[in-house]
Amino acid sequence: MQLAMVDDKIQPLEELGPAHLDRGIFFGDGVYEVICSYGGRIFALEEHLRRFAGSLVAIGITDVDIELIRSRVLNAFDAAAIADAKIYFHITRGSAPRNHAAPPNLKPNFFLTITEHQEDTEAKTNGIAVSTHPDWRWKRCDIKSLNLLPNVLARRDAAEKGCAEAILVDDAGMITEGASSAFFAILENTLQTAPLAANILPSITRDFVIKAAANAELQVVEKSFTPQQASAADELFIAFTTQDIVPVVKFDDKKIGDGKPGPHTGQLIQEFRTFTQQGL
Amino acid sequence: MQLAMVDDKIQPLEELGPAHLDRGIFFGDGVYEVICSYGGRIFALEEHLRRFAGSLVAIGITDVDIELIRSRVLNAFDAAAIADAKIYFHITRGSAPRNHAAPPNLKPNFFLTITEHQEDTEAKTNGIAVSTHPDWRWKRCDIKSLNLLPNVLARRDAAEKGCAEAILVDDAGMITEGASSAFFAILENTLQTAPLAANILPSITRDFVIKAAANAELQVVEKSFTPQQASAADELFIAFTTQDIVPVVKFDDKKIGDGKPGPHTGQLIQEFRTFTQQGL
Repeated sequence: MQLAMVDDKIQPLEELGPAHLDRGIFFGDGVYEVICSYGGRIFALEEHLRRFAGSLVAIGITDVDIELIRSRVLNAFDAAAIADAKIYFHITRGSAPRNHAAPPNLKPNFFLTITEHQEDTEAKTNGIAVSTHPDWRWKRCDIKSLNLLPNVLARRDAAEKGCAEAILVDDAGMITEGASSAFFAILENTLQTAPLAANILPSITRDFVIKAAANAELQVVEKSFTPQQASAADELFIAFTTQDIVPVVKFDDKKIGDGKPGPHTGQLIQEFRTFTQQGL
Repeated sequence: MQLAMVDDKIQPLEELGPAHLDRGIFFGDGVYEVICSYGGRIFALEEHLRRFAGSLVAIGITDVDIELIRSRVLNAFDAAAIADAKIYFHITRGSAPRNHAAPPNLKPNFFLTITEHQEDTEAKTNGIAVSTHPDWRWKRCDIKSLNLLPNVLARRDAAEKGCAEAILVDDAGMITEGASSAFFAILENTLQTAPLAANILPSITRDFVIKAAANAELQVVEKSFTPQQASAADELFIAFTTQDIVPVVKFDDKKIGDGKPGPHTGQLIQEFRTFTQQGL
């Protein structure tokens, strides 16, 4: 008899629900997005849907109607009635007995959660500590996939060092980005971050940080830099969807500036707020 | 209200089963094994359990009792009563609302399936075609993790080219291994395969191939080689748990030898059979 075992329970394989046979769990064969709302309005929905569509195409899931995804997100958001929400969703190639080669005409699985989203006031006000970790990720980090074990392991390492984020360093000794954030430095009154490439997620928050910098008349240089340069920066910060900009005040145990969030970072946080609060 | 949406169905988040909140699906935060039985006997169980224990430690899941896993595998195998079985199992860090940082004291999830396992006589008799693909995998392929999207994408590319396996090539132009197999060449009457390192799975089948070669008095060289060298090899084959040795007769459209499985490969298949059939 073909069978399955979930923890201690043996059961016929045929009785397993699709969640147990999801290619998302066997292979991480899927892509995801995280979106936030502010005061009842979803921020940058179109940008996230566009990136999501790109991720789906990149892994060859071609039969998903993005209009359907948009309507599902909006329906769920309406139903949740959470003004400041964190919306997570993923699509996987579907459910089937485990085999690298997916059967043809598999129906993709859609999964979404909506939870409350709170600003981490402590982190934004006082800044966080980060530590470096080798960038162990795959070579297509431009695809927002469910293969996130290297990110999880880097974050575990950071947590063991008392740090809130891991900053990833490639084989050439250059910083790529954070385990779940974009990474920025203020170096000589210029905002610097690694350029977009296959080894960097095309972060939507990163795009808005660059727009915020333009509004603040701060020059932006998209050029990789080293941990040594980061340690000596005037200011550092990370940026990610759920908290936008979070100042970094310690980098591998080295105090940044005077150990408090710097003025450029503060200004960018204010500029970013004009985007998320627009029309509120 | 915190909510979830599975395909079209909206439901309270709290009503989701643990399979939907598995860190295996959110992050691929788990490790797995595939084991076969022959004539009612599990082959190389101890080797697989040892590697599994190593994978668990490598990703920091430290509270799993391998003796419990052994007994679960044996119980399920008894219950299935399939003589030639394919046993798949994984452990993930557990189920929790999605967050890179896992909550403390999470209970790991165990999942296993047992299905029938059949020899692919056609492939073993006539050989298969393979094609190369860039090795996009992460830098810790020595850990048998659930992050397998690059492997899936490489296999999709191979399938589009009419090939049964993708042979992965690193940035330096050297072959690492197959998307789900070890890769071997017969070059000047010597068996050659890439050496074990962080970019190669410590394949148990690979170990047995090397033992088979010793039994066949065939010299083994663990040294990387290029696609050009592979194309010009006398013989090629892949090796993986469910089929052990499968001859490769076409490499990126180049016919290998006379286009039929070679004598050394045939001898190694026979030698391998003495391992799996031992005591039967």
